[in-house]
Amino acid sequence: MTSSESGPKECKVIQEEELTRGKWLYLSNHHWTDHTGKERIWEVVGRTTKGPQDQDCVAVVAIVSRSGHPDAMVLIKQFRPPLKSYTIEMPAGLVDNGETIETAALRELKEETGYSGSITGIGRNVSLDPGMSSATMKIVTVKVNGDDAVNKDVSRVCGVQGEHIEVILVPLNSIQKCLMDFAADGLIIDSRVEAFALGFALTSEKII
Amino acid sequence: MTSSESGPKECKVIQEEELTRGKWLYLSNHHWTDHTGKERIWEVVGRTTKGPQDQDCVAVVAIVSRSGHPDAMVLIKQFRPPLKSYTIEMPAGLVDNGETIETAALRELKEETGYSGSITGIGRNVSLDPGMSSATMKIVTVKVNGDDAVNKDVSRVCGVQGEHIEVILVPLNSIQKCLMDFAADGLIIDSRVEAFALGFALTSEKII
Repeated sequence: MTSSESGPKECKVIQEEELTRGKWLYLSNHHWTDHTGKERIWEVVGRTTKGPQDQDCVAVVAIVSRSGHPDAMVLIKQFRPPLKSYTIEMPAGLVDNGETIETAALRELKEETGYSGSITGIGRNVSLDPGMSSATMKIVTVKVNGDDAVNKDVSRVCGVQGEHIEVILVPLNSIQKCLMDFAADGLIIDSRVEAFALGFALTSEKII
Repeated sequence: MTSSESGPKECKVIQEEELTRGKWLYLSNHHWTDHTGKERIWEVVGRTTKGPQDQDCVAVVAIVSRSGHPDAMVLIKQFRPPLKSYTIEMPAGLVDNGETIETAALRELKEETGYSGSITGIGRNVSLDPGMSSATMKIVTVKVNGDDAVNKDVSRVCGVQGEHIEVILVPLNSIQKCLMDFAADGLIIDSRVEAFALGFALTSEKII
């Protein structure tokens, strides 16, 4: 056996060939070599707006604590033209050029929900749809003191630049039931909210 | 105030205008009306392979129980040309035409990891990147008996049709530490794995 046959090779992209450029999205062919060294092509979508930062966008796991209430997750309801549907998502948005992840997370949380909070964790650079898209995000966790004056009277409807965003507080201890009700109402849940709820429920079942 | 000004209108997509069609992906303009009734345009990517079923793909939260080991989540490492990187993801794949979600979930789990299991839950139709794409998935939870003869000697490297997939068992009680190590090694974590781990950790912190 020669050395070239002795094991899997490192896969890599060797060339990007742009096929079409829209205003916000582009399609490319990524020419890559697989684990056998064979050259292959993969069709890829990306955002034209991606700046020098590593990730396109930020999403926020915001947990609100209020005296007399169970801890709740801040979710938003909005219309999403790509899905032709209203969705339930974490607050999220594109990272502006030159903006830090921390600033983007707290800005999007404030713009989309009215809430102010403090960051308790910054996640890794993660993929949104790795079989199709180069888009990545970071998930930032934020603790919101719901009893704080600045958060006492936040509006149920928020948004900037023509956005119409409804803010929904979902008690963590009934998150699965709430997601079931949203789906029954025809809303599409975001996969990250669903996965968060699955992880949460798994521990609860084991421990409680 | 006339009735047309009395509150937000129902948003809806009124026309899809295809801009480009590749082999696997297409770009469209979705013409839609916002909550004020104003017509707007949103650039959207979709899969040309989408069949009559509601969702493009399925992902599997597979938990392996083995005597003498802590429960572990089955994750896979593979090269993803769109991200020009190796990724850590849940087993996942496209749903074939005419295939049920249950069949697709167990087939993908078997093809990509070698494991056989039984379904314990089927999630909702969820979005992958709702600001950009029409793609949706269902997340299916599967219980794997690692002591079962059929699962005793599964390979660490799996895949069909040129796939080269490495199977990784991550103990649930150290999932955050494992994800940190993967990221330090330059791997991109999928956002659903990250969100699952966040939900899992949140309960653990509260209760333990």
